[in-house]
Amino acid sequence: MNEAAITLDGWYVLHDFRSMDWVAWKMLTDEERQFAIDEYQAFIEKVNQADENKTGAHALYSIVGQKADLMLMLLRETMDELRELETEYNKLTLIAYTVPTYSYVSVVELSNYLAGKSDEDPYQNPHVRARLYPELQRSQYICFYPMDKRRDGDDNWYMLPMDARKELMLSHGKIGRSYAGKVKQIISGSVGFDDYEWGVTLFADDVLQFKKLVYEMRFDEVSARYAEFGSFYVGTRLDAERLTKFLEV
Amino acid sequence: MNEAAITLDGWYVLHDFRSMDWVAWKMLTDEERQFAIDEYQAFIEKVNQADENKTGAHALYSIVGQKADLMLMLLRETMDELRELETEYNKLTLIAYTVPTYSYVSVVELSNYLAGKSDEDPYQNPHVRARLYPELQRSQYICFYPMDKRRDGDDNWYMLPMDARKELMLSHGKIGRSYAGKVKQIISGSVGFDDYEWGVTLFADDVLQFKKLVYEMRFDEVSARYAEFGSFYVGTRLDAERLTKFLEV
Amino acid sequence: MNEAAITLDGWYVLHDFRSMDWVAWKMLTDEERQFAIDEYQAFIEKVNQADENKTGAHALYSIVGQKADLMLMLLRETMDELRELETEYNKLTLIAYTVPTYSYVSVVELSNYLAGKSDEDPYQNPHVRARLYPELQRSQYICFYPMDKRRDGDDNWYMLPMDARKELMLSHGKIGRSYAGKVKQIISGSVGFDDYEWGVTLFADDVLQFKKLVYEMRFDEVSARYAEFGSFYVGTRLDAERLTKFLEV
Amino acid sequence: MNEAAITLDGWYVLHDFRSMDWVAWKMLTDEERQFAIDEYQAFIEKVNQADENKTGAHALYSIVGQKADLMLMLLRETMDELRELETEYNKLTLIAYTVPTYSYVSVVELSNYLAGKSDEDPYQNPHVRARLYPELQRSQYICFYPMDKRRDGDDNWYMLPMDARKELMLSHGKIGRSYAGKVKQIISGSVGFDDYEWGVTLFADDVLQFKKLVYEMRFDEVSARYAEFGSFYVGTRLDAERLTKFLEV
Amino acid sequence: MNEAAITLDGWYVLHDFRSMDWVAWKMLTDEERQFAIDEYQAFIEKVNQADENKTGAHALYSIVGQKADLMLMLLRETMDELRELETEYNKLTLIAYTVPTYSYVSVVELSNYLAGKSDEDPYQNPHVRARLYPELQRSQYICFYPMDKRRDGDDNWYMLPMDARKELMLSHGKIGRSYAGKVKQIISGSVGFDDYEWGVTLFADDVLQFKKLVYEMRFDEVSARYAEFGSFYVGTRLDAERLTKFLEV
Repeated sequence: MNEAAITLDGWYVLHDFRSMDWVAWKMLTDEERQFAIDEYQAFIEKVNQADENKTGAHALYSIVGQKADLMLMLLRETMDELRELETEYNKLTLIAYTVPTYSYVSVVELSNYLAGKSDEDPYQNPHVRARLYPELQRSQYICFYPMDKRRDGDDNWYMLPMDARKELMLSHGKIGRSYAGKVKQIISGSVGFDDYEWGVTLFADDVLQFKKLVYEMRFDEVSARYAEFGSFYVGTRLDAERLTKFLEV
Repeated sequence: MNEAAITLDGWYVLHDFRSMDWVAWKMLTDEERQFAIDEYQAFIEKVNQADENKTGAHALYSIVGQKADLMLMLLRETMDELRELETEYNKLTLIAYTVPTYSYVSVVELSNYLAGKSDEDPYQNPHVRARLYPELQRSQYICFYPMDKRRDGDDNWYMLPMDARKELMLSHGKIGRSYAGKVKQIISGSVGFDDYEWGVTLFADDVLQFKKLVYEMRFDEVSARYAEFGSFYVGTRLDAERLTKFLEV
Repeated sequence: MNEAAITLDGWYVLHDFRSMDWVAWKMLTDEERQFAIDEYQAFIEKVNQADENKTGAHALYSIVGQKADLMLMLLRETMDELRELETEYNKLTLIAYTVPTYSYVSVVELSNYLAGKSDEDPYQNPHVRARLYPELQRSQYICFYPMDKRRDGDDNWYMLPMDARKELMLSHGKIGRSYAGKVKQIISGSVGFDDYEWGVTLFADDVLQFKKLVYEMRFDEVSARYAEFGSFYVGTRLDAERLTKFLEV
Repeated sequence: MNEAAITLDGWYVLHDFRSMDWVAWKMLTDEERQFAIDEYQAFIEKVNQADENKTGAHALYSIVGQKADLMLMLLRETMDELRELETEYNKLTLIAYTVPTYSYVSVVELSNYLAGKSDEDPYQNPHVRARLYPELQRSQYICFYPMDKRRDGDDNWYMLPMDARKELMLSHGKIGRSYAGKVKQIISGSVGFDDYEWGVTLFADDVLQFKKLVYEMRFDEVSARYAEFGSFYVGTRLDAERLTKFLEV
Repeated sequence: MNEAAITLDGWYVLHDFRSMDWVAWKMLTDEERQFAIDEYQAFIEKVNQADENKTGAHALYSIVGQKADLMLMLLRETMDELRELETEYNKLTLIAYTVPTYSYVSVVELSNYLAGKSDEDPYQNPHVRARLYPELQRSQYICFYPMDKRRDGDDNWYMLPMDARKELMLSHGKIGRSYAGKVKQIISGSVGFDDYEWGVTLFADDVLQFKKLVYEMRFDEVSARYAEFGSFYVGTRLDAERLTKFLEV
């Protein structure tokens, strides 16, 4: 048997994508719509308490194109909290005027490919903690996509020896780091939780940096030979004011 | 012709996944909803009689993410009982407020890869019986996924000689056993019954163990070269109290 | 050009799969439901006249899992009769309370791989006729799946010389024959008629024999290297009494 | 760069597949249904004017199985005429009681693989014209499927030199010609127009000839190594009388 | 790590495809329909201001076949403008009578494969600017398709050295340029934005040129070995007059 990678695991993550049912939404009276908006904003404010208490995080974006309109990303300490929040979200009045289009279940993850050797407990290391339990920046843009490492004929990541994987990930990590300050990246593992092996969530204030980063990585052997990608979603941030404008009819 | 694996087969299994139609559910009166909940709970209690009589088993979970809300897993002695229970389930009032999203038909299976030689009838062996007719633990979390063994160019499981398959499965089994006490695993065969060759159902009280187990196995040659996976579903347990809370609007 | 297999072709076949719309069905009055059931039973009885006259055959089963509830298999002498029966079926009252989920169009087929040489017209051979124009047993279980022979790199069935194909099919046929008395198998060709090249319909009174047969064959080179499978459907027989019970609400 | 095949291009083609919404159709009064039928028949008669004027052609068939009920094939001199006819068709009363299930956009095509050398303008050759601007036979059966030439590893049609492609197509063409009088074949190119590279439409009065032709071709290297097929549709002709019967409830 | 291609990036692009819900549209009164048409035309005129101000561009076409009826292509300086326009579009009365069928998010792109060396800022070069911020011709026909460069075994574009890629793209570009005056081509990059790596939008006044161009390119090694294509859409232009006729019932 080949040597398996070891992971550090942080908060559980739910990405929830939905499209507006504008026809039904427009049929409501102004009062009904206002009630639904107020209730939704109150839910988001409640969710935001965890951000402030550092017991979780969230992000709300509007996806460009027909794949979705609203994208809520939720991070929590347990899968149970995620499931309960999801159920509460599903019961909101506004959500009755949406159609679910995609979701993703994962857990924030750091792998040992890039780790140095150390005797200390990494879960006590503040740099590690900051990545496992991330504070979400209020960036203008978000990008999400799920991915697998390929297992196909000669291009089989999981048959590579640990050293080869480490070396390849080192080169890959360099590209990521060269975008420091431009793109914030959260990797979450979903083996056993959802259909791909990882979810990748990127944040930036210049949307073009998503394209530059992902394209540059595609020429790197880790992506070129070993990556299988799912759908890509790109969105712009919805703060309270923009959400109101978005829902205005 | 290559030597085929021999299986022992136990209870028949139906996994039934459904999403709530919250819009329609919220339109009911409190009385109508209560009737539907009571009827559903009564059905689950009836189903549970088989668990108590050791003539079957069941599990009820809520799936995280949009793939499903309710997941009922049913094990019975015959395919006919499964089909009748499924029909009865379909006619419940609550089910009229759900949308079917996935199902899986299989039979609990043990393969001869790991069996020692013996003259005794394995169906009389209490250890074997305990695995073919499993008592389902009331674990906090469930994970389900269907899978195939790959038949692709040089990576063709079904063209490997029996000895090679046995050796590979031995290594694979060791990983599984190293999670004893953390993850309970039920393998059910679905060749001829459903679209993949096996269904895998995992139970655990620490949801992260699903990820650790499946990820570790992925570096093992049986998975790395020979496994094709379907969708992954992860859920949290719904006992009577949580079901009531889940359905509360 | 490679030597093509020659086929003998019998009755045309339609497999029609449908799910019940229980919500709408339950909204009917008892009288309306009874009318729909009586009309449906009368249609099945009419269809059965062809079985009795040996001018066709039919089978009615309930599929386990969410892929379908009702599966009607119809065999007739011409494609036109099939189309007319299908249209008549579509207009039945009960069918308005179903959703179509899958169908398959094919013609019962025997290939020359297993044929001996003979000067006689095989269409006059009673053994051949019994297979081309089969009387359907009223077995308790049915299994259906469509399949292709693979054309992928080195695993290309259609590039194999006739002798190699004959030898492979010989081994394959032996497995099938070893299930004689346990599983009745109808192969129907669908090249030019539907998306796969063949449909396979199995009948048995022990549902486990489907799994054993299909799994054993998977280790045979014809399946291991050269088969591509579609979805698998398994069902239990609906006679008049069970149909009534199935539709009872 | 490899030498590209040259094509001759004739009429533009739209294949439009639809399923009947029998529930809604049955809810109409006899008068409403009769109006819809009369309007539909009038549309078909108008469309048929082009057949008579040799400025286009059409065919109306009923597809067997759940993929579609009605299939209208339209050939016209320009893409604009097709689009306008399609829009007019979409607005017919009967079409409001159908659900679109598939369509295909292409242009009748002859390739230079089989062409002899000549100085004359092929568009003036009456044999060529008869194939580019075909009169559609009123055959009892139709078969339609889209297809690609494969580009996969060593099986890459587009990397073959022109001479190799010509030789392969020659053998392929021989099979087609051996069905002369039994099957009429229209090849239409859809590169740049729809998802596959070609649409193949076959007409016959013996439906079994579709299966024989397509199956025989599958053993030919052009199909065996280089063809990728989409869905197959088979149907029976709807003349005015049969259409009326088809729509009768 | 392999040398990545560098891109120049211009306007952001949204392709939005929709099918008409003719049943609902026909149920409106003439006045309601006229209001919806007027409002839609006013939106298009507003959108067209950006074309006149050279701060964006748009195109409105009707797609042939069932994949879509209306296709609006929007180019803007920022992703935010695109998202806001999309939301405004979604709220139009006419759009309530459509069903979304596909969309594509990208940014107009030029790659460095074909660039000469230069010290000047390419974003100041008027030829480059004309391609990054294109004025859309009012051509009679449009063609759209998304595509990837293949990463499959020996056919892995992203593992090729820069020089090999440059040489291959040179040959590819020659074909494109040979259609100058016949086909106008806009390449937009979507890595990180949507499911394929590029969107290709072609404009022509002779629809057959789309087929000729794409087919000729398919024999070029860049396409033959390295291209993966998504769906193809072809449409005819809708100016104000044709839009009115299109929507007339």
